[in-house]
Amino acid sequence: MKLYSYWRSTTSYRVRIALHLKGLSFETVPVDLVKGDQKRDDYAALNPLAGVPTLVLDDGTALTQSMAILDYLDAVYPDMTLLPNDPIERAKVRAAAQTIAMEIHPINNLKVGDFLKSDMGQTQDDVIRWMCEWMHRGFTAFQEQIDATGKFCFGDTLTQADLCLIPQLYNAHRWGLDLAPFVRLTDIEKNCLALPAFDAARPENQPDAG
Amino acid sequence: MKLYSYWRSTTSYRVRIALHLKGLSFETVPVDLVKGDQKRDDYAALNPLAGVPTLVLDDGTALTQSMAILDYLDAVYPDMTLLPNDPIERAKVRAAAQTIAMEIHPINNLKVGDFLKSDMGQTQDDVIRWMCEWMHRGFTAFQEQIDATGKFCFGDTLTQADLCLIPQLYNAHRWGLDLAPFVRLTDIEKNCLALPAFDAARPENQPDAG
Repeated sequence: MKLYSYWRSTTSYRVRIALHLKGLSFETVPVDLVKGDQKRDDYAALNPLAGVPTLVLDDGTALTQSMAILDYLDAVYPDMTLLPNDPIERAKVRAAAQTIAMEIHPINNLKVGDFLKSDMGQTQDDVIRWMCEWMHRGFTAFQEQIDATGKFCFGDTLTQADLCLIPQLYNAHRWGLDLAPFVRLTDIEKNCLALPAFDAARPENQPDAG
Repeated sequence: MKLYSYWRSTTSYRVRIALHLKGLSFETVPVDLVKGDQKRDDYAALNPLAGVPTLVLDDGTALTQSMAILDYLDAVYPDMTLLPNDPIERAKVRAAAQTIAMEIHPINNLKVGDFLKSDMGQTQDDVIRWMCEWMHRGFTAFQEQIDATGKFCFGDTLTQADLCLIPQLYNAHRWGLDLAPFVRLTDIEKNCLALPAFDAARPENQPDAG
């Protein structure tokens, strides 16, 4: 398998964690979002959204959208499943994961920040304030959606919620969000980053890290 | 079951279509997002994000996030399943659905538009231009992700992709997006809205329609 990814992309980071947790070998193909590699014709043919990640299977099938890729990996490689079997517990894990995947990340995406600056007259400081606003609101809700105790978001078993949380916390540190109200989340972060699969997936451990 | 929803909310609309397709009876509890009902303490206790929809099961369990609710309904009521069984086909349907659910809707949400106006000095016209930008980009990718022919997005079988598309097209009409480049999408819209389940779920057919 080949994973087209960018070291700082939080959605690529989610998929890297899953691949490492499941012990799957893959080749990283860097796509430099800042240089605009994602807009090149050969890449856009793989991913119509011109985003990362794209997971290309050995038969050439290209899968896009990180959350769809996580579900695919769970279906095909059920070891280290990242969703509970019970439909209600599963819905709760998905809802928490989607609070990050739908209520924070899309609004804070690089292309959204670029548009705020290029077309809506906002400064880089405005964009940082914007990103922190959505992280603060999203993390506040997320912290209520997960368990109050336990090594990870839901008990002592890793789920998609942890795979969304840790990359988003990377961004929170990067942009200087005040994390004082989110002690439960930074505790989970410590527990996750102590695991080899999370460590291997960290942005700074990628071949294209700058 | 009780569905807390707002007539114009496209995420509520997705869940209403699924409930009607599966023939499930439910009570609609209107949450007036414009008046701020979603911020009332009793509602925020059900939904920490203060958003809609929330599906409250007969035992009182409150499920949030429309895409997690769609997956829950498919698991518990497998009649009229909205996802293919094959993991690759399933991943493709999810990816298309998520292009709308993650690349359009979150960026165009009411709370995002409100923040652009109240905190970032943008006008209502700016916000409409903003919404159309993300719909145009998202629909362009979506149209490449789905089948080129067939009654619905993927062949002649309804999927989560159709349940995301039709509500987003409601917003596209509302905000005056130029739909000329998206004939395939408006053709699918006609086929879907001809079905009783989609018709019953339309915003204008809800008890709180204004």
